[in-house]
Amino acid sequence: MLYYKDIETNIVQKFGSYEVTHEEVIEFASKYDPQPFHLNDEAAAKTHFGRVSASGWHTAAMTMRMLVDHMNAHKQAGLGSPGVENLRWIKPVHPGDTLRCELVTLQKRQSESRPEMGILKSMMTVFNQHDEKVMTMESTSLIEVRGN
Amino acid sequence: MLYYKDIETNIVQKFGSYEVTHEEVIEFASKYDPQPFHLNDEAAAKTHFGRVSASGWHTAAMTMRMLVDHMNAHKQAGLGSPGVENLRWIKPVHPGDTLRCELVTLQKRQSESRPEMGILKSMMTVFNQHDEKVMTMESTSLIEVRGN
Repeated sequence: MLYYKDIETNIVQKFGSYEVTHEEVIEFASKYDPQPFHLNDEAAAKTHFGRVSASGWHTAAMTMRMLVDHMNAHKQAGLGSPGVENLRWIKPVHPGDTLRCELVTLQKRQSESRPEMGILKSMMTVFNQHDEKVMTMESTSLIEVRGN
Repeated sequence: MLYYKDIETNIVQKFGSYEVTHEEVIEFASKYDPQPFHLNDEAAAKTHFGRVSASGWHTAAMTMRMLVDHMNAHKQAGLGSPGVENLRWIKPVHPGDTLRCELVTLQKRQSESRPEMGILKSMMTVFNQHDEKVMTMESTSLIEVRGN
């Protein structure tokens, strides 16, 4: 298991390959973001989206899945996140796209109030299959401190 | 339909009532955020979450649904969002909670590059049934400019 002490800063971790299906875009949007440009091409064509595009919250959720799979593969003792800064939806994500992640841990420090927790500041960039940035965010995440 | 010119700033809009079910918490987490503390009480009890809690991205998605329903009820000509600042998950959201929203539009301006779009800066606060803040975010959203 990887704990706080094992996290290295300023190294780009590349991971993930998430195929965005039409079915999943519609399913997520129907449940959580039923705006016309997330539900059908005709409505999207009348907007800057051009054609049906995933909810930004869906893109964030797909990114989280890639991140959790990455953490599991590396057995990282994550403890969730208090928040995110500067979440940017840069380009629309469309059905048929394949997303991937680049993650850099920028800073790490041990919590003063809860010394069993380490606090990581990271920059996440999500790309599509054309290597275009579709989403960026700066996240804060928590990780177990053990064996110090 | 409500367009850019109809949006008033500095008025608190209260809306939404979203019942967070155990089934939905597990379904979202299984798909997008399969960390143990989002999947079962036993694992969550070993962390600061205490018991099973919704993924923060699920809370954001439920909030979006309340917002879209509110915009639809008021026939607001929304055009999506380029991003969010300072997304904060303040308290865990648990199955059985009921969420509600308070939204204030802080600023509005017309886009210079795309004058058919208005840009709104808003503060969203999400409360649980105990009137505890569970999530806050500052969002940027786009709305149609027409009939000016």
